[in-house]
Amino acid sequence: MERLQQQIAFILELDKLKAVLRRTKPTGLERQENTAEHSWHIATLALVMAEYANEPVDMSHVVKMLLVHDIVEIDADDTMIYDVAANADKWERESRAAERLFGLLPAAQGAEFKALWLEYEAQSTPEARFAKVADRLMPILHNYHRQGEGWLIHKVRAHQVRQVNSVIDHGSNELWAFVQSLIDDAVAKGYLAE
Amino acid sequence: MERLQQQIAFILELDKLKAVLRRTKPTGLERQENTAEHSWHIATLALVMAEYANEPVDMSHVVKMLLVHDIVEIDADDTMIYDVAANADKWERESRAAERLFGLLPAAQGAEFKALWLEYEAQSTPEARFAKVADRLMPILHNYHRQGEGWLIHKVRAHQVRQVNSVIDHGSNELWAFVQSLIDDAVAKGYLAE
Repeated sequence: MERLQQQIAFILELDKLKAVLRRTKPTGLERQENTAEHSWHIATLALVMAEYANEPVDMSHVVKMLLVHDIVEIDADDTMIYDVAANADKWERESRAAERLFGLLPAAQGAEFKALWLEYEAQSTPEARFAKVADRLMPILHNYHRQGEGWLIHKVRAHQVRQVNSVIDHGSNELWAFVQSLIDDAVAKGYLAE
Repeated sequence: MERLQQQIAFILELDKLKAVLRRTKPTGLERQENTAEHSWHIATLALVMAEYANEPVDMSHVVKMLLVHDIVEIDADDTMIYDVAANADKWERESRAAERLFGLLPAAQGAEFKALWLEYEAQSTPEARFAKVADRLMPILHNYHRQGEGWLIHKVRAHQVRQVNSVIDHGSNELWAFVQSLIDDAVAKGYLAE
């Protein structure tokens, strides 16, 4: 019964991810996206886009990683990928968060969840690289389909979008080619400054 | 390229699930939960609670089903499980929604996604039965940990909670035993009318 109580405590703690706000807004909604709904969206995106992975991937492992990899934001908050200063101590903040949050679970299970987060961060498996594709593709789609709103507000330039998102290429050459054409088109339409 | 465009159109359509509001509020938040964040929460809950399944289940299949099974609510809206009238035409509303929404995808892929939804609805596999456990357990935890707020507002009685949620027993005897003790305790504390 103590084991189940620990698991329930973790599950209830997850409610807090619904209050962590990201910089982008979903299409059709005039509010920021929260990290919980974002996690659902990119896990589902990964299922839809599986065929574009560079290497054979265990998609169920990709999905698990995507469900779990942002839980650390409950304590560490969302860190915008273009914010160099905030990214300097991201690892330290998120490591502390991982200790506390996955530490709510029974030890062996907490270690499994933490391992999923670490695998995503290390980017050393095909699954982690494809999970990153899903995480990076979604905000680009949101920004493009909101006429560059997020990019313009945060004064993000095309060279930053290309540089920071080129990791997509490590997981999917095809989707990176698609994203590059979207970025070029965003520049042409004035959604993004060159 | 047309195939990818269909997949992107589906992905963007999914943003609408973030605007579908459920009856319960998450713990610690003074707003209703939306179905997108709920889907993330119960998929993650299933990973945590896997050990309590009655039968051996392919957990990756459970997770896929949970990510996909509520997409129909984009068109059909959330139907409260205690609302007998609304449940009368739920199947018809959701079937139409499934046609349109999964129909946005390339045909074979749309059929795969629709099959996941149908499998969940039919409740004839161990995976569908355990997915249902996750979907039913979460709102009970929310209602209990909000001092019965959702039950009291919607005038739900203990016998309804027991009856409607007894399907949990088909997927997990252990979690059903736990839920029954939670319901009894909720009655004892005045969170739920007998």
